[in-house]
Amino acid sequence: MMQQILIGGVWRDARAEGDFHAFNPSNGEPLPDRFPISTYDDAQEAIQFGWEAARLLRQTKPEAVANFLECYANKIELNRADLVGLAHVETGFPAEPRLNSIELPRTVDQLRQAARACVDRSWMRPIIDTQTNIKSILAPLGAPVVVFGPNNFAFAFNGVAGGDFAAAIAARNPVIAIANPGHPGTTRLLAELARQSLLETDLSMATVQLLYRVPDDVGLKLVADHRIGATSFTGSKAAGLKLKAAADRSGKLFYAELSSLNPVFVLSGALEERGDTIAHEFFNSCTMGSGQFCTNPGLVIVPTGELGQGFVESVSEKFSSQQGGVLLGPAAIDGLVKAIDTYVSHGATIRTGGTADTADGFRFANTVLTVSAVVFLNHPEALQTEAFGPVCLIVLASDNEMVQIAASLEGNLTGTIYTSTNTLDDQLYARIEPILRQQVGRLLNDKMPTGVAVSPAMNHGGPFPATGHPGFSAVGIPASITRFAALQCYDNVRDDRLPAELSASNPLAIWRTVDGQPSR
Amino acid sequence: MMQQILIGGVWRDARAEGDFHAFNPSNGEPLPDRFPISTYDDAQEAIQFGWEAARLLRQTKPEAVANFLECYANKIELNRADLVGLAHVETGFPAEPRLNSIELPRTVDQLRQAARACVDRSWMRPIIDTQTNIKSILAPLGAPVVVFGPNNFAFAFNGVAGGDFAAAIAARNPVIAIANPGHPGTTRLLAELARQSLLETDLSMATVQLLYRVPDDVGLKLVADHRIGATSFTGSKAAGLKLKAAADRSGKLFYAELSSLNPVFVLSGALEERGDTIAHEFFNSCTMGSGQFCTNPGLVIVPTGELGQGFVESVSEKFSSQQGGVLLGPAAIDGLVKAIDTYVSHGATIRTGGTADTADGFRFANTVLTVSAVVFLNHPEALQTEAFGPVCLIVLASDNEMVQIAASLEGNLTGTIYTSTNTLDDQLYARIEPILRQQVGRLLNDKMPTGVAVSPAMNHGGPFPATGHPGFSAVGIPASITRFAALQCYDNVRDDRLPAELSASNPLAIWRTVDGQPSR
Repeated sequence: MMQQILIGGVWRDARAEGDFHAFNPSNGEPLPDRFPISTYDDAQEAIQFGWEAARLLRQTKPEAVANFLECYANKIELNRADLVGLAHVETGFPAEPRLNSIELPRTVDQLRQAARACVDRSWMRPIIDTQTNIKSILAPLGAPVVVFGPNNFAFAFNGVAGGDFAAAIAARNPVIAIANPGHPGTTRLLAELARQSLLETDLSMATVQLLYRVPDDVGLKLVADHRIGATSFTGSKAAGLKLKAAADRSGKLFYAELSSLNPVFVLSGALEERGDTIAHEFFNSCTMGSGQFCTNPGLVIVPTGELGQGFVESVSEKFSSQQGGVLLGPAAIDGLVKAIDTYVSHGATIRTGGTADTADGFRFANTVLTVSAVVFLNHPEALQTEAFGPVCLIVLASDNEMVQIAASLEGNLTGTIYTSTNTLDDQLYARIEPILRQQVGRLLNDKMPTGVAVSPAMNHGGPFPATGHPGFSAVGIPASITRFAALQCYDNVRDDRLPAELSASNPLAIWRTVDGQPSR
Repeated sequence: MMQQILIGGVWRDARAEGDFHAFNPSNGEPLPDRFPISTYDDAQEAIQFGWEAARLLRQTKPEAVANFLECYANKIELNRADLVGLAHVETGFPAEPRLNSIELPRTVDQLRQAARACVDRSWMRPIIDTQTNIKSILAPLGAPVVVFGPNNFAFAFNGVAGGDFAAAIAARNPVIAIANPGHPGTTRLLAELARQSLLETDLSMATVQLLYRVPDDVGLKLVADHRIGATSFTGSKAAGLKLKAAADRSGKLFYAELSSLNPVFVLSGALEERGDTIAHEFFNSCTMGSGQFCTNPGLVIVPTGELGQGFVESVSEKFSSQQGGVLLGPAAIDGLVKAIDTYVSHGATIRTGGTADTADGFRFANTVLTVSAVVFLNHPEALQTEAFGPVCLIVLASDNEMVQIAASLEGNLTGTIYTSTNTLDDQLYARIEPILRQQVGRLLNDKMPTGVAVSPAMNHGGPFPATGHPGFSAVGIPASITRFAALQCYDNVRDDRLPAELSASNPLAIWRTVDGQPSR
């Protein structure tokens, strides 16, 4: 059955040029539903509806937007069984605990945190300068936000339900979601729940729109359209950079999350003290979700000599002892084959795995490669190719080489250092940390990077190419909301004409910075 | 005499490909000093020194950076006579009050405000989540910032002394300044004071470097270099967009301030009540600094009929009664000629002025043009060409047309609405404001936009093409500093390894957000 797109609050047939279907990764079989590939006509219409909705939405009370987010979160919980069932079929991720007990609760928690941020205005950062009678606040962009969701989260980063969606809506901008073609059915079901929620809470029906897929040239026009406020893209570097260039040319905001190896340095004191525990933690982190996390640790740096070799052996044994998990689709396997080819042709050695296993769904063997620091430092670019799956490259390095490797790293979402609980590793930590610190958004100690808490202090971001702007985070509320905001200043404007957030009497009793001091 | 560039703390001969000189705009004569046009060799060396200095600077105590900024501010005051004398010769701006009593005090105030922000850490926005043990903070980019200063401020926006400089340094990033070729001598003198201040306060000598000019291709390589953290550019849209494209391609931050017409809507109640006063305010604002402010009001929308006609006559009379001020150079005159040609060829009528006057320095007659709303709405793009000088286009419009004009505006730094003190204009204000609000960074009431207070609530920014990102301001501390910062998160990091700003005991007694609440 050919599914319909959601435009201006109405499900209707697409003006399509072709269609596609998703796969069930667990058995490699195509799924029956067909989804249209939209033409520019569809995109145009979505933009125009979105543009008109933006004007209504930015004049809507934040409390009404919060009601919508709460209503939507409730509906997702009420439809939990259908959503989890469909997402399981489309992604191959296990229903328990991943989809039902981790990702779905996280998704509704994000929507509810965003609803609270609407009400408490924490993302708006109101500033009042009483001496000059100048006031400013972060406000809606006033235009729709395009969200391209990634393949590896059917709920938590979905274009119609995930973190970027919640952030854009909380800032009172409509969303035009482009489904990830890996889970179009789940996305369709979520969009229907969003549509029902808009209806029940009386928001503009074009606040949430959905296309399943657009041809490359339509995508480029979409993100560059003058009626678009911003685009948020999580996905492959190649596709992301093309879209980014188009948005940049027309002066449009483009938030991208493109690639990250998430290096982990394990220092000798830590290995000596608890090498097996760390190997176990690492194995769990690197193979969790079949290694398909943005924060998957794909690069590990350990000391040369017995300790490092022991770690390699321990890790390889664990990796080889378990069948590789199901990947999201055939493209994921192709990507891993290419990445491993690149590693090997630049001097890395496969310790275990290295091959696809498609007899039983889209699987790839858990894979460990090793390389010497000398070789790594000769080919730092090639050996930082992202391998999106249960694959890790372990570099054996002396203390000095570890410092050099830290300096050769590209921008990453995370960087981790494991040290001993005593002071043994302190000196080397002090040499590596200042360098690693600048290359990563989140620095961890003694903890694998795959958990990304929805905390106000979280940074799910980092220097290019991890993302396009190192000052912003895609996860964490209120910070993630500020990506979709414009700074609006009022100079000599009468009090009754100001937004309530800036009114002298602070009628909303919110936190504001008044003459340099927080006050409420 | 051929002047030297400042690289790695040392004045040395440039590896030049050609040279240039500045003009004295007051008499049109070339000035005797020659300044080199640097090759890529010079740029490379500046980048490498800057990169190394960045590592030292980000590990320098904020208090030491504050000392440098204070020391530099003091030296600027001590050398006030020389600086003002030189800037007067190079820019044609009057020594009094503009250079000596307005711009220089503003410049040292900015440096001192930046010094205070270093110490109070207000720009760093520390966030602590005690439940998850995750903490985050804005931190140095860790790489040098390139600052291209504009022609219209020899001090306050100078690449080695102005707002962008102060912001980049306060965030503990070195600056590579590219002088504006209009005032290279002033810039050289400022850079020497900065050099002496670095020496006295024991900061890395490559913290401030200066090139006078680079060929286009060198500029493109400079802003895209992987060792550069960000570029800040204030200047022409054509040059800015080329540099922006190069920076964007390599994922480098590029803050641009490109053009702004700063529309002013004068509603009929206001005209009726105090038309002459407003005409007078407008005349002062539009001709101040010979109209060469980023926030110069170049577009005025007034009602059709007697009131609007009266305003046009009153303004034209004032504009024609005074000789046009001295412009910054011959290019400024060319730009005005072209802009006025564009206006006229799209249906505008010259009411007064319209021609250059170079008998007595680089002058251009104070110029008023008018156009009907119908014509404006037929050619909104051409009639929003920026005319950088004492030139204004007045549009005569009905109430409905005013609303349409607001909707047709490009992104601007400011937008202004004048209304009567009674409620006469309230209805029309309520129609125009929501539209204008989204097109501008700063919305003013009953006040011309040319004054840009260095206030924490200021927004000197706005939607594209006014700037490249509507969430940031180039003026106002601490906000302007955050442009040159990376968000750095610490996850499970031991307290003694955290920056003091995030330490549990808050040893610096600074404002932080702890579990969602400001505390100190």
